[in-house]
Amino acid sequence: MPTRAHFTTMSETRNIKRTPLPEPTLRRLPWYLAYVRTLHSRQEQYVSSTQVAKAINVDAAQFAKDLSYLGIKGKPRIGYETRTLMQRLVDTLGFKLKHNAVVVGAGSLGGALMQDMGLSQYGLSIVAGFDVNPALTGTAICGIPIYEVGQLAERCRQFEATIAILTVPVEFAQQAADAAVQSGIKSIWNFTPVRIVVPPHVVVVDTPIYADLALLYNRATGNVK
Amino acid sequence: MPTRAHFTTMSETRNIKRTPLPEPTLRRLPWYLAYVRTLHSRQEQYVSSTQVAKAINVDAAQFAKDLSYLGIKGKPRIGYETRTLMQRLVDTLGFKLKHNAVVVGAGSLGGALMQDMGLSQYGLSIVAGFDVNPALTGTAICGIPIYEVGQLAERCRQFEATIAILTVPVEFAQQAADAAVQSGIKSIWNFTPVRIVVPPHVVVVDTPIYADLALLYNRATGNVK
Repeated sequence: MPTRAHFTTMSETRNIKRTPLPEPTLRRLPWYLAYVRTLHSRQEQYVSSTQVAKAINVDAAQFAKDLSYLGIKGKPRIGYETRTLMQRLVDTLGFKLKHNAVVVGAGSLGGALMQDMGLSQYGLSIVAGFDVNPALTGTAICGIPIYEVGQLAERCRQFEATIAILTVPVEFAQQAADAAVQSGIKSIWNFTPVRIVVPPHVVVVDTPIYADLALLYNRATGNVK
Repeated sequence: MPTRAHFTTMSETRNIKRTPLPEPTLRRLPWYLAYVRTLHSRQEQYVSSTQVAKAINVDAAQFAKDLSYLGIKGKPRIGYETRTLMQRLVDTLGFKLKHNAVVVGAGSLGGALMQDMGLSQYGLSIVAGFDVNPALTGTAICGIPIYEVGQLAERCRQFEATIAILTVPVEFAQQAADAAVQSGIKSIWNFTPVRIVVPPHVVVVDTPIYADLALLYNRATGNVK
């Protein structure tokens, strides 16, 4: 049985300077995390790159290369300690930190996201919602207050929110994004199918759920290559 | 003022045999739809490809080529009729049809999606939820009943559901997908970060919301290239 010293520990990796990850690497890390979490829940202590590769259909060398960006190296014939690997992935992905977010557009999708308590396990803390609908403003969803859009700047400061989750109807997407930027928001998680335009210092990540849905429909009918 | 005959109409395009769309084209159509919807809501009757290109930052030739897959051609110096274009995009994307879906894992994210009435505007009709949690089974969310997972096959038949929305914890993702496939489900909309494996006749589309969230966090800190 190998001793713990054979495995990379958090303290060892902390001294390694982190280089920026390529986006494709970052996008694969949640797959690794999901698999390693499953192994950990089964009390499996170690995992090899070939085991990961086979389980999630990724090249073993790719897996090893991706982890090297995190300063994690496996040991030949031993592999990686699942608990350490899991912690390191959670840490790199940013899921361990608390990121305060506001929902702009607290209607059907926005309201639904405010009810999804599972997001907090991934570091997302929704602190407020905003809407133009007087039937919604002044109410709360799961204890999260909904304010008028006019209060965006003031409330973002109050709650120290840096992320806006954009769930407004398409015709208001750009102006809602503008209002978020003017309120000091640094990142926008865009669920609208609108290609919003922001200043260079603001980050936008699109989650194109309606395009995904269209892809699902059209793959099933063979209408997409 | 041009007459209506100058524009492509639904009846003209219907006789054109539809070739399968490339996936990148399909993924751009929701952007076009969102923009054209906005124009239509402003009562703008016509739109040119250069106007679309500028508004959503897509190459004008790319836009024209994408639409040619749909059998739609604009007229030089006139462009496209917004209402016809909107209808044709909705039609191609599959948003006009009703697609019956079940939610497998009616916890936080699954429960939230069951409450998102907006999805029905995109053709998705959630008819039932399934869970292993006895506190959820036998209840309903927004009138949508939640059953034990054991009833999946029977209820999918009853409700003529062809789509399963996968929102279970990672360690149950593959077995939930297997159960869905055995229940006759043809398409899986996968919200879990697990790379699920299905037979070739089953379609899987991933919506990697946790990877998107990680990308949002890491772009903001400059940890991703």
